[in-house]
Amino acid sequence: MADQKQQEVINSWGLKSWTYLSSLRQQSPLIQCITNFVSMDIMANTLLAAGASPAMVHSILEIPDFTPHTKSVLINVGTLTPDWLPAMKAAAGLAKQLGKPWVLDPAAVGASSFRLKACLELIELKPTVIRGNGSEIIALSMASIGSTKGADSLHESSDAIESAKSLAKSSGSIVAISGSVDFVTDGERVVGAHNGVPMMQKITASGCSVTALIAAFVAIDPTHAFEATASAFSVFGLAGEIGMELSLGPASLRMHLIDSLHRLDQDTVLDRVTITSFS
Amino acid sequence: MADQKQQEVINSWGLKSWTYLSSLRQQSPLIQCITNFVSMDIMANTLLAAGASPAMVHSILEIPDFTPHTKSVLINVGTLTPDWLPAMKAAAGLAKQLGKPWVLDPAAVGASSFRLKACLELIELKPTVIRGNGSEIIALSMASIGSTKGADSLHESSDAIESAKSLAKSSGSIVAISGSVDFVTDGERVVGAHNGVPMMQKITASGCSVTALIAAFVAIDPTHAFEATASAFSVFGLAGEIGMELSLGPASLRMHLIDSLHRLDQDTVLDRVTITSFS
Amino acid sequence: MADQKQQEVINSWGLKSWTYLSSLRQQSPLIQCITNFVSMDIMANTLLAAGASPAMVHSILEIPDFTPHTKSVLINVGTLTPDWLPAMKAAAGLAKQLGKPWVLDPAAVGASSFRLKACLELIELKPTVIRGNGSEIIALSMASIGSTKGADSLHESSDAIESAKSLAKSSGSIVAISGSVDFVTDGERVVGAHNGVPMMQKITASGCSVTALIAAFVAIDPTHAFEATASAFSVFGLAGEIGMELSLGPASLRMHLIDSLHRLDQDTVLDRVTITSFS
Repeated sequence: MADQKQQEVINSWGLKSWTYLSSLRQQSPLIQCITNFVSMDIMANTLLAAGASPAMVHSILEIPDFTPHTKSVLINVGTLTPDWLPAMKAAAGLAKQLGKPWVLDPAAVGASSFRLKACLELIELKPTVIRGNGSEIIALSMASIGSTKGADSLHESSDAIESAKSLAKSSGSIVAISGSVDFVTDGERVVGAHNGVPMMQKITASGCSVTALIAAFVAIDPTHAFEATASAFSVFGLAGEIGMELSLGPASLRMHLIDSLHRLDQDTVLDRVTITSFS
Repeated sequence: MADQKQQEVINSWGLKSWTYLSSLRQQSPLIQCITNFVSMDIMANTLLAAGASPAMVHSILEIPDFTPHTKSVLINVGTLTPDWLPAMKAAAGLAKQLGKPWVLDPAAVGASSFRLKACLELIELKPTVIRGNGSEIIALSMASIGSTKGADSLHESSDAIESAKSLAKSSGSIVAISGSVDFVTDGERVVGAHNGVPMMQKITASGCSVTALIAAFVAIDPTHAFEATASAFSVFGLAGEIGMELSLGPASLRMHLIDSLHRLDQDTVLDRVTITSFS
Repeated sequence: MADQKQQEVINSWGLKSWTYLSSLRQQSPLIQCITNFVSMDIMANTLLAAGASPAMVHSILEIPDFTPHTKSVLINVGTLTPDWLPAMKAAAGLAKQLGKPWVLDPAAVGASSFRLKACLELIELKPTVIRGNGSEIIALSMASIGSTKGADSLHESSDAIESAKSLAKSSGSIVAISGSVDFVTDGERVVGAHNGVPMMQKITASGCSVTALIAAFVAIDPTHAFEATASAFSVFGLAGEIGMELSLGPASLRMHLIDSLHRLDQDTVLDRVTITSFS
């Protein structure tokens, strides 16, 4: 009986995930990405492969004209300099004002006081979702630097669950932690998305790219950001699993992951998406 | 007889295209690209694969020393901010003054008034060629924003032919429209380049890359920019067709397209380049 | 007897190279890269595949917090603008002050007086290693522009050996020249690394990437930068040789090179690394 209930839960998440992905392909929502230089290429290609319409538009002069036409906004601080911050705040603030979802990727937030302060200011603009690795979520939750190592995490994602719950409660955001299991919490509920392969961590900006996919899924259903976030993690991870079958290393995985994301079909999503409750 | 004449026209374009490509490989002209952050990697790799020598040099301080050594200049406004515009104008202006061809890619020109104004100012510096998608060419021709959706087009390329002819007449530029058929006009003549596959639109910056290839072909023969532009469209599209035979999705197509561009041989170009007159 | 001694020399370099690579995989040192926009993606992926932990952190505000946690710093001027130079000097200066190795890539240094002056100022901050192509090393050694063609070299690497020795003596840096044979000199000794395939020159930022690998190898053993540099050249070239076996052109080589770097095993490194003395 327990097995059967578990199976139903899995199937329910598979159906949710497929609904998000198939709606994304039909609607092709415009997603504005203000992101770091390293990730722009793979992020845009990930969004295109998934069915979204990415726009890397980051000039503060363009936000009043452009942001109102978007369905969601992604902000990633991976190569932050002070001149980029006003546009990030303007886009996030306008999204909030217009009732559009926006997603924060606090990449390498623990690298400096400058970056931490910038992320904390952005969080005051009420991101719909915050997605980081374990070290990043811990740094944000403690408002303290020193616990990250550049873009890579020093912590397992499971080490950050309590920090994520705390951050979710204080910020009002859905908080998502990448890792060997990806966790999502709204401060009360916690689910873990189990899809993915370890070699995805050897692809630069794969974390940035899944945050962009979260922004795209949240654009489809802004009122269920918790479900959209968990589904994006699993769909991206599942594309990595299928891509890995054809891959000899991280560069071929990068290619096959994007190809697989483009080709994912309903049966595969229903069968293989694996999301379970941890709360 | 009609069939035979049509066949001769096709063969004539195949020969032109091969002449441009083989000359590019022999001469390896230096092409200065002032382009957006998303496209830099794929654009440089496209130019290298085609035989050109790309240089992503965009500091205004370097233009007086560097631009005189180039054979053509490409300007792409995809991630424009105000601090980039003076260097774009300086490079375009110096190219014009020195009699070198330069090519404008008005990427996402309809995204904002800021971007539209910047492109209209650049057009006053007399680009040799302007290459956009249907929505971008319509926005430029009407000097009006709102008809584009980020970097993706809301219009078929054929919808933009009259706009392109009008823009060509007013600007004195060759105007090129990307789409399921790529059109080129000088304001009177119109040809359509039929090579290519739909999945190329799922590769970010593939449009930017074909504009760079146009800049390289125009560098080979600045006095026949109309022919060089149509040939670049077909050669790039043909590389996509051949690449598609090996591809499982957009990321493998990106790779195989570049490989195919590097390997294209005379027989394939002569046989498969398909350019027809629409005027 | 000569053959046998030569064989021993080769095996000795194979062992050195394997020691660097396997240590890199074990220690995963944090490498700070302040580099050009074109190279960021391939450079980060190269470092990840080799086992390092790359961080593209370039804001001057972050250097006091972040640079002390790194094991080495890479500075590449490929898309230099004046606003980037203070952070480059700050990071290089802090690395020097803290006794950390740092590596300079004077990309396209001959493109302008601005770029040449910037590189000469950076050299005053005592880079551990300077890596360029033949034209770049000649331009630096002569403190004169005009001998380079954008990012591509007009000179064979062997043409630049005397310039490299002179630059090594005047700067106190190890000087490394990329080309069909890669040379490394400390001003007295000269070795040539013979691994690699010509098509690597058709991959944009492959030179930038090998400089990053040099920074990673030097991080493992800062007191033997000469040996670390030659080993990095051969390991990268060997990954290219193996990758080439599976490749149809430059884009597939880019992928297979990175995959091969990730997969290189001890036997292959010991058997195939080929470094010989030229002094």
